[in-house]
Amino acid sequence: MTQSSAFAIRRLAVIGVGLIGGSLARALREAGALGEVVGCGRGRANLEKAVELGVIDRYTHDVGEAVEGADMIFVAVPLGAMEKTFAAMKGHLAEDAVITDGGSTKASVVEACRRGLGDIPAGFVPGHPIAGTEQSGVEASFATLYHKRRVILTPLSVTSPAAVARVRTMWETCGSEVNELSVEHHDFVLAATSHLPHMLAFGLVDTLARLDETDEVFRYAAGGFRDFSRIASSNPVMWRDICLANRDALGDLLERFSVEMVDLAASIRAGDGDRLLEIFERAKAARDNYVDGVYEK
Amino acid sequence: MTQSSAFAIRRLAVIGVGLIGGSLARALREAGALGEVVGCGRGRANLEKAVELGVIDRYTHDVGEAVEGADMIFVAVPLGAMEKTFAAMKGHLAEDAVITDGGSTKASVVEACRRGLGDIPAGFVPGHPIAGTEQSGVEASFATLYHKRRVILTPLSVTSPAAVARVRTMWETCGSEVNELSVEHHDFVLAATSHLPHMLAFGLVDTLARLDETDEVFRYAAGGFRDFSRIASSNPVMWRDICLANRDALGDLLERFSVEMVDLAASIRAGDGDRLLEIFERAKAARDNYVDGVYEK
Repeated sequence: MTQSSAFAIRRLAVIGVGLIGGSLARALREAGALGEVVGCGRGRANLEKAVELGVIDRYTHDVGEAVEGADMIFVAVPLGAMEKTFAAMKGHLAEDAVITDGGSTKASVVEACRRGLGDIPAGFVPGHPIAGTEQSGVEASFATLYHKRRVILTPLSVTSPAAVARVRTMWETCGSEVNELSVEHHDFVLAATSHLPHMLAFGLVDTLARLDETDEVFRYAAGGFRDFSRIASSNPVMWRDICLANRDALGDLLERFSVEMVDLAASIRAGDGDRLLEIFERAKAARDNYVDGVYEK
Repeated sequence: MTQSSAFAIRRLAVIGVGLIGGSLARALREAGALGEVVGCGRGRANLEKAVELGVIDRYTHDVGEAVEGADMIFVAVPLGAMEKTFAAMKGHLAEDAVITDGGSTKASVVEACRRGLGDIPAGFVPGHPIAGTEQSGVEASFATLYHKRRVILTPLSVTSPAAVARVRTMWETCGSEVNELSVEHHDFVLAATSHLPHMLAFGLVDTLARLDETDEVFRYAAGGFRDFSRIASSNPVMWRDICLANRDALGDLLERFSVEMVDLAASIRAGDGDRLLEIFERAKAARDNYVDGVYEK
């Protein structure tokens, strides 16, 4: 089952054993990079399932106990639970402990770490694997979730280069491509490419759901609508937390987008075909370039 | 190649032999419902290809010539070319000619017919098959494009019930489900489920394309963005024409959507998690119901 690997983690603590945390443990296990895996979470049934599936070796409901003696800690809890998770680690961290996370926004996680631990440890490397499915829970986890996916690390000035190197190697061992961005840059880029599209999908579907003709409207919705609205089926609590955690970048982008919508609506009302064509052609060119990989490094 | 069929068209004139027109001819041919098919268009190469593929039997560049002796005429030209197409039919229509079309908006096509022919003939049945792909041209056409897809007919008070019945049977012969709506209702429902989502996709991609960080933003865009933005690759000229043709319904819906965006942006700025959760939960419920077929008849 295990293959040889130069990279090795003595004890991995996974705080939050769901799709994201479970898939990391599976991938590292398959790569032969793991000693022991300790899982931590609230739900007993999910944790027992994780042991049964071989994703973790043992579990505890206590974060402090979970991180004792761990040289790598992966925090994969909802954004709203980050601060109390960090607080519960206080006094339990091994000296060589490297901590990273899977949160969708980074400024908020850094702040949660600062408040929870009282300080940012040199071993903390904020991270974000850009991967996921609509499913959740350890049963949805799989070893190749991160294969050929990007992981963004946002090290701080206090972060130890050795800790960054270990987290980078951990993700590369899972087959990921690792990039480094500043915290601010990460939060802006993700607001643009993920958080804003989710707001449009939720907003569109909600607008239609509130129409008097809502049943008829959905009855005639065709294939394009299905693709477009898929992300409106995402977890509402998770998205509330992301919005609250990234409110400045997302607020800015929503306002830019609203200006664009006002421009479009005015051009449509005025019958300004030239302006509409200009907007649509610029968008199509950007989208076609994106699909063709022009923006890849 | 042909099967027996109770429904028969003596001579079908297809004005605009592309994906939409070509697929109708192919489907009816496969059902054994066709005598002769005359194609009409501007591009010689495309029309010769259509003959070579067996989609049409012969072609002309002259609309008047194409409709002579045809008992069924399918107009599948861009919205911007509708009026001159109807004008060119004047004086050439057979007494029993039934005319229908594939235009994405219906009020504009009815108006184009009125202006082009000087009057709405009793044999004109405005229609809209809700089907398509990102491709175009007769080579992209295929016999099953309309299979299990909806076709909306919007007959007018002057429309002959016999003409409606023939067009309905024609589409049912292609395997489509036929519904009747008023012109206004069709244009509103399509504005909501197709035209508005296209505006959001074009507007989102254009907003991102105009950012200073545009290369970086597209570099980190993940799978959800790909699905969401797919329709921004649609034909800009076609979408300009749709916007101009359906400006009232689409303008209204864009304004409703903008109100929703302002509400969302304000809730995010204010950190109003309860309001965000309410919007996201309502949207998710509507989207999940849609996928589960709750809105199907």
